[in-house]
Amino acid sequence: MPEKTIVLSSGGIDSSTAMAIAKSEGKEIYSLSFRYGQRHSIELEAAKRVAESIGAKAHKIIDIDLRQFGGSALTDDIDVPKHDTINEIEQDDIPITYVPARNTIFLSYAMAWAEVLKATSIYIGVTAVDYSGYPDCRPKFIEAFEKMANLATKTGITKQAILKIETPLIHLSKAEIIKTGNNLGVDYSMTISCYDPDASGRSCGRCDSCLHRINGFKETGINDPTIYY
Amino acid sequence: MPEKTIVLSSGGIDSSTAMAIAKSEGKEIYSLSFRYGQRHSIELEAAKRVAESIGAKAHKIIDIDLRQFGGSALTDDIDVPKHDTINEIEQDDIPITYVPARNTIFLSYAMAWAEVLKATSIYIGVTAVDYSGYPDCRPKFIEAFEKMANLATKTGITKQAILKIETPLIHLSKAEIIKTGNNLGVDYSMTISCYDPDASGRSCGRCDSCLHRINGFKETGINDPTIYY
Repeated sequence: MPEKTIVLSSGGIDSSTAMAIAKSEGKEIYSLSFRYGQRHSIELEAAKRVAESIGAKAHKIIDIDLRQFGGSALTDDIDVPKHDTINEIEQDDIPITYVPARNTIFLSYAMAWAEVLKATSIYIGVTAVDYSGYPDCRPKFIEAFEKMANLATKTGITKQAILKIETPLIHLSKAEIIKTGNNLGVDYSMTISCYDPDASGRSCGRCDSCLHRINGFKETGINDPTIYY
Repeated sequence: MPEKTIVLSSGGIDSSTAMAIAKSEGKEIYSLSFRYGQRHSIELEAAKRVAESIGAKAHKIIDIDLRQFGGSALTDDIDVPKHDTINEIEQDDIPITYVPARNTIFLSYAMAWAEVLKATSIYIGVTAVDYSGYPDCRPKFIEAFEKMANLATKTGITKQAILKIETPLIHLSKAEIIKTGNNLGVDYSMTISCYDPDASGRSCGRCDSCLHRINGFKETGINDPTIYY
């Protein structure tokens, strides 16, 4: 019996590559995405396509309403910042695209599903390299979450199993992630990174996330299949 | 300016008492409840009444669908276990009323709201005494969550503020909780503990939660205002 794993999937490069890595490690994949009040749902369609193409056993979309709390350009009526080049992104600040507690909430739901399925791990495609300054992408956050998770659940009492939070991309640059996924056969034309796509799903090419993507493809020499408007 | 605090409220004895304690400590109260697929919403009405009577600044109800994952008598079509006396409750097992990851998910949402409001604490009415065997009511779970929370948020990077998880009931028995709340003027007729109330909001008197409540009132000598069917 293969071990079951929950993979948090946003339909972007990072989570799609993390899913392909979990698959290559022999895991049975349960893909989990969230409709969290983001201003577009194009990424949810991407997540579904990616889960199907990698052969996930199941794909769930959970509705959570982070708009009730406000505080982010990704869920509120605040403009997504745009730049002409990657060098203009301010690295020291926590960007306005940060969604409060997002990864914590995502991982908490994944933990619930993992407990019910008796899955032994959760894969999350966070990276501490091109990580856009989000506090909940840092290795010490992930370690603290894993510790908490193993106290929060039945397994924390019964000691029957330990839940691992797997971060296979944590030390990889965007270019290294793309290379890894490319070797595993990930079709990046299925994925989307843009914070502000147009109605037909084309990317802006100027938000932080697009700029990291464009730069990543450029560094690898692999063709970027993304259509920019 | 009073410090802001998020209080997790279920409309039961414990969270209502925790809210009264937060109020008595001078906090500005932001009450947070969840519609999480529980089989009845009577407790949400109770939570709203309690928040109003204690003078909460705001009360939010968040929809989260834990039924998608299954695995609990509180959210699935599994019978809630009933007993004639408190001594029949099995203390060693994790009960079927346990909802996977519930407190972790609740605290994660509270953390999101706290970050947006710049609240400095979250009050949760967990108790390690009459705690029904839930792993996510244990002090070491709360400590691990607090540590994680302070790494997950902006404040974890900026060090501007620390988020405290306050558990004022953690070492109190049900009787001590009732005495404390009674001294603070909590009107327990507004609260509900039952896992299986009837349509008119009366309590069964035989589920674990009712039995703990009945026993708690009996030990204090305070009149139990609950109506049992």
